[in-house]
Amino acid sequence: MRMVDIIHTKRSGEALSDEQIQYFVDGVVSGDIPDYQTSALLMAIFFQGMTKEEQSTLTMKMMASGDHLDLSGIPGVKVDKHSTGGVGDKTSIPLAAVVAALGIPVPMISGRGLGHTGGTLDKLEAIPGYQVEISEQDFINQVKKDKLAIIGATGNIAPADKKIYALRDVTDTVDSIPLIAGSIMSKKIASGTDALVIDVKTGAGAFMKTLADSRALAKALVDIGKDVGMQCMALITDMNQPLGNAIGNALEIEESIALLKGKGPADLEKLIVTIGGYMAVMGGKAKTTEQGQAQCLEVIHNGKALASFKAMVQDQGGDPKVVDDPKGVLPQATYRIDLPAKQSGVVSKIVADEVGIASMLLGGGRQKADDKLDYSVGIVLRKKIGDSVQAGDALLTIYSNRKNVEDIQKLLYDNIEISDAAQAPTLIYETIE
Amino acid sequence: MRMVDIIHTKRSGEALSDEQIQYFVDGVVSGDIPDYQTSALLMAIFFQGMTKEEQSTLTMKMMASGDHLDLSGIPGVKVDKHSTGGVGDKTSIPLAAVVAALGIPVPMISGRGLGHTGGTLDKLEAIPGYQVEISEQDFINQVKKDKLAIIGATGNIAPADKKIYALRDVTDTVDSIPLIAGSIMSKKIASGTDALVIDVKTGAGAFMKTLADSRALAKALVDIGKDVGMQCMALITDMNQPLGNAIGNALEIEESIALLKGKGPADLEKLIVTIGGYMAVMGGKAKTTEQGQAQCLEVIHNGKALASFKAMVQDQGGDPKVVDDPKGVLPQATYRIDLPAKQSGVVSKIVADEVGIASMLLGGGRQKADDKLDYSVGIVLRKKIGDSVQAGDALLTIYSNRKNVEDIQKLLYDNIEISDAAQAPTLIYETIE
Repeated sequence: MRMVDIIHTKRSGEALSDEQIQYFVDGVVSGDIPDYQTSALLMAIFFQGMTKEEQSTLTMKMMASGDHLDLSGIPGVKVDKHSTGGVGDKTSIPLAAVVAALGIPVPMISGRGLGHTGGTLDKLEAIPGYQVEISEQDFINQVKKDKLAIIGATGNIAPADKKIYALRDVTDTVDSIPLIAGSIMSKKIASGTDALVIDVKTGAGAFMKTLADSRALAKALVDIGKDVGMQCMALITDMNQPLGNAIGNALEIEESIALLKGKGPADLEKLIVTIGGYMAVMGGKAKTTEQGQAQCLEVIHNGKALASFKAMVQDQGGDPKVVDDPKGVLPQATYRIDLPAKQSGVVSKIVADEVGIASMLLGGGRQKADDKLDYSVGIVLRKKIGDSVQAGDALLTIYSNRKNVEDIQKLLYDNIEISDAAQAPTLIYETIE
Repeated sequence: MRMVDIIHTKRSGEALSDEQIQYFVDGVVSGDIPDYQTSALLMAIFFQGMTKEEQSTLTMKMMASGDHLDLSGIPGVKVDKHSTGGVGDKTSIPLAAVVAALGIPVPMISGRGLGHTGGTLDKLEAIPGYQVEISEQDFINQVKKDKLAIIGATGNIAPADKKIYALRDVTDTVDSIPLIAGSIMSKKIASGTDALVIDVKTGAGAFMKTLADSRALAKALVDIGKDVGMQCMALITDMNQPLGNAIGNALEIEESIALLKGKGPADLEKLIVTIGGYMAVMGGKAKTTEQGQAQCLEVIHNGKALASFKAMVQDQGGDPKVVDDPKGVLPQATYRIDLPAKQSGVVSKIVADEVGIASMLLGGGRQKADDKLDYSVGIVLRKKIGDSVQAGDALLTIYSNRKNVEDIQKLLYDNIEISDAAQAPTLIYETIE
């Protein structure tokens, strides 16, 4: 078999055989296939796509290229949630605590942020002492005890994906549906979960800018999951404006804790309760999603979800006092600078990715994979789309460790619009089961 | 500027700016752009194409990446001819001699063969002593004296193309019209010719399998040439069956000499006289192509073209006796094995690329760039499409240095068809000026 023939097959719009995909994945991991042939194939896949069978095969071969986590020692249906990533998307953190509080084990393996999107691990590391790297055995033990752990990838999970992802990043082949689907699902299958809800973000702040693309990705993800016998479903949710109000690592932990006290932003709570309702059914704790949603609201309002979160923080080495006194424990920025509205009206646009970039430029995100983060900085929205505003009202507050933020202010003004009238956007577009 | 953004521009179907193309070509030559990004861009160009302006800019930047031959010391309009390559396509050799015999300087820089196609340099090297590597000054002096020299590339011609071509070969991005056009024309412009006729081959034995693709390539080539003020035109000619009768290096030299004695195959003579007619007009020796064609026939039949060829062979170190006694001078294969027709009828198909592969497998061509050639071997067709044949008649003769050629016979039988009726195919489809 020759790699140039495999490239030709895909370039011509034909489906790759199982043997061709195996040869490709093996060659990537061994280094026998040079990067320039891999990147040519990735670009051909971008243009020609993959069939359902090819996606499934690619995913399984990438999964099989590394370690497989054995979670069979944890009793119950293990449930996980994945988001394709957005701005202000701290959903996983409070959601995992909510679902764990229902008695469902949530062994969550998360990632870091890059560019305009944040990462769950980065946010948790804003809590002094929190360890995201723990051993597989400690991870399993903690999920048994607390029903909850959120960690980074352990061991050698899907090394083929690691190499391919690094190439996609520098060859503009990131936003290919089969490649995204294969990357996400190879890791999720290797992580040993029984059930998975995927939150496919759509809009300006998401990889998928259109509903059609988001739907195609959601379908690809669910198809692959079902192919391997995983309980799997997806929601397509809005990422035109940031989710919730806080953008920035410590600020998002503070907002997550507020949510677990029943004081979170309405959109974030609605999303968590909706997804939690599905997870409650998957985990066998509710008969219907409505029942599951009611259970989620209950554990938010009776403090059980907050207690789950506190136990996880403590067991992973973090300072549990963060729950009672977030501002006292979390790093705080030196300057808080309000951005006043220049006119009266209704907020009609808050471009999510540009707000994410503003937070990144303050030091809260990474431009390159090895950039150091400033956990304290970020942005808190005071108004969201559909909110009325008077000229001079604060649209948002910038949390910064530099006094001069004129560049950030200009960027934000350029990406927030005030009109005569506007409605809050749809939060949840559809579900794919 | 970042290469990933350049890839994104092209991947999205937008035109690259002059600055982006310059950055790309510079980065390829310096090695600053890694091969995996180059190959991703090449694949994006394959799918998205290039505008006329982009093709022209890419060509000029690749040309400017290396040396430029200065032929201004040679008086007269310098005329060159290029073929996109085919099977049995020895046209350049007798054609150059014909045009030189009209008093038009032909400074021809040619290439080698790969895969099923032969190369002009390889064929000339079948003549004992013939040197294709001579200095720039010797090249110029010889063209002044003989009006004719056929050599390999001198110096550092279009190094960007050299690197890009090597990558295209292993990433299945060879048959992209803007990339083919840029590769050919960057070298032709650097070689300093004033006028150029391009023979774009079309059909089974050519890069371009369809007339539409061939037309697009021909147009791209001519557009680029005209953009830099070169006299430039293209013909689209048949490569479904091999051109002439001989395939193989020494065999094609023998056929070329026969042609220059007025005893060549009809299709080859027609093509040479047609192209020669255009070159005669470009070189200022004829007012009309008809007049030019008559002049070409004249120098074929009065021996002047043969004398031009003999002078070139002698001045480039080759044995001039080859002209009078080809079989005595050229290497000869040990075995001559006829392939008898299995049935009577009319030859309806001779698949050119497979016949080229048969010759390659006998040792006459290269599978890899560093394969050694056996100049003596090859195939001579005894029948062509449209010819009647009786069962048992020789369809062709295999010239081999191995006795057992069953594999070759099988391959050839599989690719020659005999039917009830068939016509000789069109030789020259159209001209693009």
